[in-house]
Amino acid sequence: MSTFGKLFRVTTYGESHCPSVGAIIDGCPPGLVLEAKDIQVQLNRRRPGQSNLTTPRNEKDAVILQSGTERGVTLGTPIGLLVKNEDQRPHDYTETDLFPRPSHADYTYLAKYGIKASSGGGRSSARETIGRVAAGAIAEKYLKQAFGVEIVAFVSSVGKIQLPMSKTAAPGEEDHDDDEALTPEFRELLNTVTREQVDADSIRCPHPETAERMIQRILRAKEANDSIGGTVTCVIRKVPAGLGEPVFDKFEATLAHAMLSIPATKAFEIGSGFKGTEIPGSKHNDPFVRRADGSLGTSTNWSGGVQGGITNAEDIYFRVAFKSPATISQAQGTVKYDGSAGELAARGRHDPCVVPRAVPIVEAMAAIVVLDQLLQQNARKTAASLLPPVTTLPPTMVLPPQ
Amino acid sequence: MSTFGKLFRVTTYGESHCPSVGAIIDGCPPGLVLEAKDIQVQLNRRRPGQSNLTTPRNEKDAVILQSGTERGVTLGTPIGLLVKNEDQRPHDYTETDLFPRPSHADYTYLAKYGIKASSGGGRSSARETIGRVAAGAIAEKYLKQAFGVEIVAFVSSVGKIQLPMSKTAAPGEEDHDDDEALTPEFRELLNTVTREQVDADSIRCPHPETAERMIQRILRAKEANDSIGGTVTCVIRKVPAGLGEPVFDKFEATLAHAMLSIPATKAFEIGSGFKGTEIPGSKHNDPFVRRADGSLGTSTNWSGGVQGGITNAEDIYFRVAFKSPATISQAQGTVKYDGSAGELAARGRHDPCVVPRAVPIVEAMAAIVVLDQLLQQNARKTAASLLPPVTTLPPTMVLPPQ
Amino acid sequence: MSTFGKLFRVTTYGESHCPSVGAIIDGCPPGLVLEAKDIQVQLNRRRPGQSNLTTPRNEKDAVILQSGTERGVTLGTPIGLLVKNEDQRPHDYTETDLFPRPSHADYTYLAKYGIKASSGGGRSSARETIGRVAAGAIAEKYLKQAFGVEIVAFVSSVGKIQLPMSKTAAPGEEDHDDDEALTPEFRELLNTVTREQVDADSIRCPHPETAERMIQRILRAKEANDSIGGTVTCVIRKVPAGLGEPVFDKFEATLAHAMLSIPATKAFEIGSGFKGTEIPGSKHNDPFVRRADGSLGTSTNWSGGVQGGITNAEDIYFRVAFKSPATISQAQGTVKYDGSAGELAARGRHDPCVVPRAVPIVEAMAAIVVLDQLLQQNARKTAASLLPPVTTLPPTMVLPPQ
Amino acid sequence: MSTFGKLFRVTTYGESHCPSVGAIIDGCPPGLVLEAKDIQVQLNRRRPGQSNLTTPRNEKDAVILQSGTERGVTLGTPIGLLVKNEDQRPHDYTETDLFPRPSHADYTYLAKYGIKASSGGGRSSARETIGRVAAGAIAEKYLKQAFGVEIVAFVSSVGKIQLPMSKTAAPGEEDHDDDEALTPEFRELLNTVTREQVDADSIRCPHPETAERMIQRILRAKEANDSIGGTVTCVIRKVPAGLGEPVFDKFEATLAHAMLSIPATKAFEIGSGFKGTEIPGSKHNDPFVRRADGSLGTSTNWSGGVQGGITNAEDIYFRVAFKSPATISQAQGTVKYDGSAGELAARGRHDPCVVPRAVPIVEAMAAIVVLDQLLQQNARKTAASLLPPVTTLPPTMVLPPQ
Repeated sequence: MSTFGKLFRVTTYGESHCPSVGAIIDGCPPGLVLEAKDIQVQLNRRRPGQSNLTTPRNEKDAVILQSGTERGVTLGTPIGLLVKNEDQRPHDYTETDLFPRPSHADYTYLAKYGIKASSGGGRSSARETIGRVAAGAIAEKYLKQAFGVEIVAFVSSVGKIQLPMSKTAAPGEEDHDDDEALTPEFRELLNTVTREQVDADSIRCPHPETAERMIQRILRAKEANDSIGGTVTCVIRKVPAGLGEPVFDKFEATLAHAMLSIPATKAFEIGSGFKGTEIPGSKHNDPFVRRADGSLGTSTNWSGGVQGGITNAEDIYFRVAFKSPATISQAQGTVKYDGSAGELAARGRHDPCVVPRAVPIVEAMAAIVVLDQLLQQNARKTAASLLPPVTTLPPTMVLPPQ
Repeated sequence: MSTFGKLFRVTTYGESHCPSVGAIIDGCPPGLVLEAKDIQVQLNRRRPGQSNLTTPRNEKDAVILQSGTERGVTLGTPIGLLVKNEDQRPHDYTETDLFPRPSHADYTYLAKYGIKASSGGGRSSARETIGRVAAGAIAEKYLKQAFGVEIVAFVSSVGKIQLPMSKTAAPGEEDHDDDEALTPEFRELLNTVTREQVDADSIRCPHPETAERMIQRILRAKEANDSIGGTVTCVIRKVPAGLGEPVFDKFEATLAHAMLSIPATKAFEIGSGFKGTEIPGSKHNDPFVRRADGSLGTSTNWSGGVQGGITNAEDIYFRVAFKSPATISQAQGTVKYDGSAGELAARGRHDPCVVPRAVPIVEAMAAIVVLDQLLQQNARKTAASLLPPVTTLPPTMVLPPQ
Repeated sequence: MSTFGKLFRVTTYGESHCPSVGAIIDGCPPGLVLEAKDIQVQLNRRRPGQSNLTTPRNEKDAVILQSGTERGVTLGTPIGLLVKNEDQRPHDYTETDLFPRPSHADYTYLAKYGIKASSGGGRSSARETIGRVAAGAIAEKYLKQAFGVEIVAFVSSVGKIQLPMSKTAAPGEEDHDDDEALTPEFRELLNTVTREQVDADSIRCPHPETAERMIQRILRAKEANDSIGGTVTCVIRKVPAGLGEPVFDKFEATLAHAMLSIPATKAFEIGSGFKGTEIPGSKHNDPFVRRADGSLGTSTNWSGGVQGGITNAEDIYFRVAFKSPATISQAQGTVKYDGSAGELAARGRHDPCVVPRAVPIVEAMAAIVVLDQLLQQNARKTAASLLPPVTTLPPTMVLPPQ
Repeated sequence: MSTFGKLFRVTTYGESHCPSVGAIIDGCPPGLVLEAKDIQVQLNRRRPGQSNLTTPRNEKDAVILQSGTERGVTLGTPIGLLVKNEDQRPHDYTETDLFPRPSHADYTYLAKYGIKASSGGGRSSARETIGRVAAGAIAEKYLKQAFGVEIVAFVSSVGKIQLPMSKTAAPGEEDHDDDEALTPEFRELLNTVTREQVDADSIRCPHPETAERMIQRILRAKEANDSIGGTVTCVIRKVPAGLGEPVFDKFEATLAHAMLSIPATKAFEIGSGFKGTEIPGSKHNDPFVRRADGSLGTSTNWSGGVQGGITNAEDIYFRVAFKSPATISQAQGTVKYDGSAGELAARGRHDPCVVPRAVPIVEAMAAIVVLDQLLQQNARKTAASLLPPVTTLPPTMVLPPQ
C-alpha cells in the first residue's frame, strides 16, 4: 500500500494532476532541527528540467510543511507536508488515450482498480516520488546528525556505457577464477565519492570521462525519439553494526523492497551481487581484521556491509537498475483497449533517461530503510542493556570486550 | 522480524540445534485439501544429502502438522507445523569457535543481539528455511487448485557456467543496439520448463549440456575445499492480472523482499533486469496484442509480467543470486573475536554450492508472495464489485468490456 | 502510531496551531462516488460552536480533497485531504504555561517526546479527530452503498443523567436474578433510532425528556466553571455475518482499540457489557431462531452482534465513556513543571462536556473498523469460493444450505 | 489474525483437539534468563481443574520450549513453544452437534470460514489462551528484571457480588456530586495487593469476606446447571512514564484491544472508567505533586496511570468484564443449523464461571502490551538521546531538569 516502514514510516498520496502530492512522515525522532530547506535541497535534485537530459517541464516543487515541527524543531509527531501540482486540470480526452501505453501502468491500473486517472500517470507518475524524497531528506538529516552517516548515490551506467565496475572474463575462460567482482578503481570510488562530485555534472556520474559518454548516449536516444535505461549505485557509510531484522526483514531484504518500489526499477544487487556468484568462497569471503579502535572490521568488503542480513559497520553499497522509459515519441505498433490495432506516439516531452533524477530517490529510500532499521535495533539494544549481565554462558556465545 | 506476509502470513522459529524448527502459517484459505505429504514433497527437495553435490548430512525432515486442518481439510485457522532437529545437543566448544567465520553471520549476530547460539548457524542456518518451504507448499497448492498457477524454479548459473540467457555485445560495441536481454532459446525455456525437467538432474538445471558443466564446476570447488555461487531463475505462470499494491508494495518489491530474505542471496532481477537497461525503449517496450479470448496481452514480455508494480497476466520471471557459501574447509587467514590473528578451517562437510537446494526455497517464497498479494486484491475487487456501476466517467478512465 | 487499519487505513497529522490538520486514507474501494460534501456533513457535526453546550470557537473546518478521486469518483488510490487551522500562530508564552495541566497530556507528551508543542494541546487536541471523521465518512458511504449499513451514535448519559438503560437491583438483592442488562425501552431505541432523531436536539440524545435534563446538567457544569463526562452509545445495523479476525483481532477487540484511541475515552462495553456479567448464562444466551429468509438469527441480542469475536449479522451496539474534560476555568491547586506549588486556572473557553461532539467521532471510528474487517473477510471468502467444494467432511463441520 | 504486538509479538496456533497448541514469541530481548518453569507457573494458574469452582478436566499443560534460548538464556530469536493436547481425537459426531450452541462461536465460525472444527470450540476454545499466557510470562519476567514491574490481577466481581469498589448515589440523587469513582478501601487494595494474596483463595479475590460470597454464588450457578459472569481487575505498578503511541496506539487503546481479544470478554474500563464520567472535572482531575525524588507525580490517580494515551508512571489499573459462560448443562430452546427447533443441553462438565482462571490471562496480555509499548518508546528515546541538545526553544516546550 502507500505506507513504508515500521517505526519510521512514510505514507504518500497524490496523482499527477490533482491539487497536490504529499506525505505524512511518522516516527521522526523528536528534537531534530528541521526546516523546509533541508527537504527542498533534495526535492530540487529530483525535479525535472534541471538539464537538457531530462524533461523540460519546469515544476517548482516547493515543499510546504504542515505539522510536526515548531520553531524549526521536530516534535516527534507526524510531519505532514505537501507540494502543489502546477497543472491540476483533469486531462483532456484525446485519441491517444484510447491506447494503453506499452510497458506503462495504464493497463495494469485498470486491471487492478477497474478505473484510472484520466492523466495516464496517476500514482505511477514520477511525481509520486516527491513524498519519498522528502521523507528521505528528514531521515538523512537525523542519521547525519546522530551518526555522521553519509549516503551518496550516482549514475553507474547508461545503456552499455558503464563505469569501470568489473572485469568479466572473455568467453571461453569459464574456468578462470581470477575475476574480481569490482575493480580496485571502482572500490576506491565507493570509498571516496561525495555528493558534490556527483553533482558536478548533469548526468550525476562522478567519473568525467564516462559521464561525457553517458551524456552522448542519452542525447542519441533523445534525437531518436527513443529512451535508454541505466543503473544507480549507492554507498552508505558509517551505519552502525547490528541493523537488520532476521529472518524476513534482513537489511538487504528491506533495502531491496525499498528500491524495487521506485518506479521503473527492475533489479537490485548488494555487495558483489550477480558478479560475486562467479567468485569462489575462498576469494569472496571477507577476512576479519582488527581495527585501530580494537573493534573487528573486514579487509575486503564483497559482502557490501551486510552479513547474515545484519550490517557489520563496513560501507553498504548496492546497485539498482532502471529500465528505459516506456513513454517515447516514436510511433509504436500496439492495440487499443478495445483490441483494435493501431499506432501510438506519445505527445509532449519525456525523459529519455531517468537515472540522473533517480539519484536522490535512491538516496531517500536508503535513508528511510537505515533509520527504520536503526530504530528497531535501538528498541532491542536498549531493552537488553537494562538486564543484569549474564555470567553463565561460555565465552563463544557472547561478544568479548574489544 | 520472523513474520512475512500481510494476509497470508508465515512466522518461523528455530535454530539449528534446538528441539525443532517450525512455523505458524496464518490466513490460509479454508476448505483446501491439505495433508503432510503435500508439504513433505517440497521439504524433500530442500533437504541436504540428495546428491554428491550437496552436504551429505542425512536429515529426514519429516513435517508434523499440529493444527489448522481436520480430516485433511484446512479450517482457515493457523496451521502449526514442525520438523524435529536430529541433533539437539548444544554445540561443543572448540578452538574453531574462537573465530567469527568470515562472511558468515557469527559476528553480526553478536553485534545485534550481544549473544549467539553456540552452534554457529543459529537462525542464519539453512534449517531456518524449512518453515518457508512448508508455507510455500501450502500457498502453492491453493494457487494451483484455484488458478492453475505453475511455479518452476531452476538453476540458471553456477559460477561462470550459465544457461544461454543473453547475448552481450563484445567490448567496443557499446553503440550496438541489437542485443536482446534474453535469447529466444531461454525465453522458450521459460515458456515450457516443468518441475519434472528440473528434477531430472541433481543440479536442477533443465538444460542437460549446461547441467553437466555445472556439476563439474561444483565438483571442482568441492575438491579444492572451496565453494561456488550461482543463480536461480523462477517462472510463475497463470497469475491473474491486478496483483501488487502500489506504491510501496509493488509486486516486484515484495518479491524482491522475499527473495533477498533467503540466506546467501545478494541480487534480484525481474524481467529483463540489469541487461534490460541497455535496450532502448523502442525495443524494450512490450506492445499490446489482442488475445484469442478478447483480453489484452503483450507480444513480448521484457517486463516479466509486471508493469507499474502490478501483474499483467503474462508470465512472471525473475532471477536470484546466491553467493559462494562462506563456510569452506580450506584455511583462511582471519582474526579471532579478541582480535588476534590466526587461521580458520571449517570442520565437517559443507555444501560447496547451495543453488540446487535453493530451488524449492525460491519457489516457496514466490508462492507466498503471490497468495498474499492475491488475497489483498481479492479484498478490493470484491468490495468494488458490490458498488453500483459508475456511469459518469469518460471511457478512457474505465476498462472496456473485452 | 498515527495509522489505523490494515486494508482500509487512515493516517493523520496535525497539531492545533500548525498550518493544517489532515489525513491520508488508503485502501478505499475504487468506483465510489465521493465528493467533499459527503465528508463535510460529518465534519460539521464534529465542529465546535454548534450550540451553547460546546465551546464557542467558530472553526469553519472546510475539508479540501487533495487526491484519490477524479470527477467525483474514487480511484482506489490514497485520498489525501486537509482542513486548514484558523489560528496558525505559535502559542504565546504565559505564566499558565509553566503548569502541566492536571489530567491533560502536557506532562505525558513531555515525558514521551522530551518536547511538546507550545500550544498545550498538540496532538492531544480535539482537532486531531478531524482526519478520523473524514475517513469514517468515506467508509460509511461505502458501507451504506454496498450493504445498506446504518451507523447511529447518540448520547446515552451525561454525568448521572442517563437514558433508561438497565434496571439495577437495589442493594441487598444480590441473589435476585431477574435483572435485564438493558430495558425493553432501550432495546427498542437501539432498533429504531435514526441520525435525524439524534440531531433533533443539540445534546444529541434521542429521548427528549432525558435530553433536557442532560442539557441542564451541562449548563450547571458550565456555570460552575467545571466540566462533566458522559457516554455515547452506538448501534450498527446490517453488518454481514463473518467479520472479525480471531484470535487477536476479534471484532470487538479492534472496535475497543478504535474507541479507546479517541481522546478522553476511559471505557468500552459491547452488548450487555459490564451489566451482563450479572446475568446467568441461561438468561444471557441468545437462542437461535430461523429468520424468514431461512438464515439463522437470534431471538435476543445480549451478545451485541458479536459471538466468538465474529459478527453474526444481528445489530452491533456498544457504549463508550468520555471523562469530564480536564481543562476547566476554576482554579486548581497543583504544581509547576519545576515542582513549585501554585494555582492554575485555564484561560479561554472550553467544552464543559464533549459527548455531543463525540457522536460523529464514534460513528467514524466504527465505520473504519467495519470496512477494514469487511475487506479482510472479503479476501478470505473470495479465495475460499474459488476452491472445488469439499465433499468428505461430516455435516457438522460445514454450514448447511439455508 | 493470530499475531499480537509490534516489536514484542506473539503468534499462536491450535484448536482444542489437534496435536498441540503453541506459540512463537518474537522480539524477546536477548540475555534474559528464562526456563520452562518461568512459564509453567502461570500456565498452572490458568489450568482447569484447580478447584471445585472450575471444570474438573485434568490437563497437565506442560510447556515444552522449542527454540530461542540456550543454556537458559534468551538469544533474542523467536521462542517456539508448545503444550500437547491430551485428547487429540477428532470429535465424535452426536445429535448435540446439529445445534449451534447459543452465544458460542459455532455459528459465527461457520459464517466466517464455511467450515469449523468438529469439536465445537476450535480456536474459540479456552485452550487458545495457553500461548498468550506463555508469552505474557516471558514479558513479565523481563519487565520485573529490568524495571521491577509488578502485575497483579484479581477477581473483583462475580455476578452481583463485588468488591466494595464504588459508592453509587441512590436513585433521585442525580445532582449529588460527592460520589467517588472508587472507594478509599478499594484504592488501598490496588496499592497493596500481591499475587500471593490473590492466590490465597481458589476464587482469586483478595478480600476474604467477598471471596466467600463469590464462591457461594458460583456454587449456586453450578447446582442450577447454569453459569455466571464476573470481572477481573488488574493493577500494573512501576511502569515508566512515556509509554503509548498516539494517536491510534494510545496505551489504553492497545490494552483494550488486548483485553477484548480474550475469549468471553465484553467490556473494559481504565482508571475511573464508566463511573468516572459522573464526576465533575474539578474533582476528577489529578493534581500534580512533587515526589521525593524531584519528579512529578499526581496526588490522586483517577486517570489510571494514563493521560493523553501515555503512561505517567502512576499505577495503571483497569477492569475487564467476562460474560457468563455460554455452555450450560440445562436445556435451552433453540434451533438446529437447518432451522428446525429443538432443545440443546450441553454434555460433559463446564466452567460455571471463568473469572478465577482468567486472572493469569489478563496479567499475560497486560505484560505483552507493556513490553511492546516499552520497546517502541525505547526506540524513540534512544534515537532522540543521540541528537545534539536543542537550545533555541522556550522553556515551556521542553521538560525541565527535575
